[in-house]
Amino acid sequence: MPQRLAGVFAPVITPFSADLSPDSHLLVRHCQWLLSQEVGLAIFGTNSEANSLSVSEKRMLLDKLIEADICPSLLMPGTGSCALSDAVELTCHATELNCGGVLMLPPFYYKDVGNDGLYGFFSEVIQRVGDANLRIYLYHIPPIAQVEISLSLIERLCTTYPDQIAGIKDSSGDWNHTRQLNALGINDFRVFCGSESFLLRNMQAGGAGCISATVNVNPAAIVRLFKNWQSADAKLQQNQLDTIRDLFQHFPMISALKTVTALYSDEPSWSRTRPPLVSLTSSQQQDLSQELALINFQMPNLQTE
Amino acid sequence: MPQRLAGVFAPVITPFSADLSPDSHLLVRHCQWLLSQEVGLAIFGTNSEANSLSVSEKRMLLDKLIEADICPSLLMPGTGSCALSDAVELTCHATELNCGGVLMLPPFYYKDVGNDGLYGFFSEVIQRVGDANLRIYLYHIPPIAQVEISLSLIERLCTTYPDQIAGIKDSSGDWNHTRQLNALGINDFRVFCGSESFLLRNMQAGGAGCISATVNVNPAAIVRLFKNWQSADAKLQQNQLDTIRDLFQHFPMISALKTVTALYSDEPSWSRTRPPLVSLTSSQQQDLSQELALINFQMPNLQTE
Repeated sequence: MPQRLAGVFAPVITPFSADLSPDSHLLVRHCQWLLSQEVGLAIFGTNSEANSLSVSEKRMLLDKLIEADICPSLLMPGTGSCALSDAVELTCHATELNCGGVLMLPPFYYKDVGNDGLYGFFSEVIQRVGDANLRIYLYHIPPIAQVEISLSLIERLCTTYPDQIAGIKDSSGDWNHTRQLNALGINDFRVFCGSESFLLRNMQAGGAGCISATVNVNPAAIVRLFKNWQSADAKLQQNQLDTIRDLFQHFPMISALKTVTALYSDEPSWSRTRPPLVSLTSSQQQDLSQELALINFQMPNLQTE
Repeated sequence: MPQRLAGVFAPVITPFSADLSPDSHLLVRHCQWLLSQEVGLAIFGTNSEANSLSVSEKRMLLDKLIEADICPSLLMPGTGSCALSDAVELTCHATELNCGGVLMLPPFYYKDVGNDGLYGFFSEVIQRVGDANLRIYLYHIPPIAQVEISLSLIERLCTTYPDQIAGIKDSSGDWNHTRQLNALGINDFRVFCGSESFLLRNMQAGGAGCISATVNVNPAAIVRLFKNWQSADAKLQQNQLDTIRDLFQHFPMISALKTVTALYSDEPSWSRTRPPLVSLTSSQQQDLSQELALINFQMPNLQTE
């Protein structure tokens, strides 16, 4: 049986070649660097442009990571989809490859579908995958998905599937909601905050860690706070994380993460996004570089080859 | 070169077998009935639960319709997707099969992406499909997609791709917006309203017809108004259409359409939806039947076998 997950996870950004196909070579390299920084790999998240990829592209990338000897127990691929058939296919594949868990969006096309419909969706996925090793981390991100995973839905799913429903990523941006999730009292239910801005408070509330965009570029410092949240300088560490997070939030986040990764890895192709996302303009890139230089920002040893 | 489309189109509901796989046999039969009522087939729309289907399921259904000798020029399949690769694959397939056009949602996961990103998406699709016969009808449905296709985006796309961008379906629910679309002054740009409630006004404004949920159940009367919108009793006809539309809008629309189709075709499996949608409750089904009986509603000759 897989252990439930805890720690700091990167929703790993996805590199694209000039023809906009996903570049598995660069992805493997970035994942290896992230693992060297002691973070787990929440590939195929919002920051991964995962919904801009087909299921077959995601299967291919996952296969390439496993072929590169990346330990599957450190992988938490996003496998949610609007289509039941797509969610089942990718979740099956991840589970067969022994991924530590999957991060699952609700189906997000229809709005106002209600708890019965969402329960039906997750329930069908679990039953169709039919694998005792499946561990689902629900993905609550109402600002983007525009479909919520309510507290009562979580309780209902955990009652029926206490082994399969292992936790949640809360990207509501609302600390009070993360607090409520930690207070649900469900046995070993793992609550990850969706931004390191809430990491200290989440750990104090009994949370399991964070899965956050900026883990792609600032993993070591975030891991340090995760490990030392009970230390005397934890609040100071939190403030330092917030400074970097705030800087990135002045820009379109995903494009900014890719620009910075391109800069520090000396791989210009990292700055490419797939439509509908757009890369930073030259002016935005300059501003970002200057702001990072002002705070002596680094991504150490990013060039691993 | 394909003619641009005009008329009344059904966003064809999709039947599911007990295992929730799409039932191509029942779909073919319903499409044949709709064609007998003189409406076109906008398969894979919102009312088709198209985003609840995988690309391979949609390819299979489209192939089955063609194999059943349904004329491809009367087909306007929905081929939009969050993923560029999925949109390209399905649009290629539809174009190779000589469909009259495709109805294309914007990528709808990321919100607030801006015109440049959406332009980039549609532009990449058109260039990758690379077929002079491609005819795209844009699908504007902000209440559900939560991503808009703005007037300025339409103008920009039509300037670059005057042959490929053939029109739009406006499901904004806002007559003033449909009016603005008709007033854009783009050569032969076909404006379909997303509800027959706007059909008379759309025809008066120079529009091309409608693509509407309730065409699935009330096609003949809607076609009658389309053909006779300049007749003396057009307003009376519009009022009669509105009565039926309003009745259906008291219920969850897609489930109500399926319930009624199940009832009149004597095929109970039609009432099945795929999660996250849910079927009408028994009580809702009874209420719907009673309300329909009160207005002597019929779906003539629905049982074609």
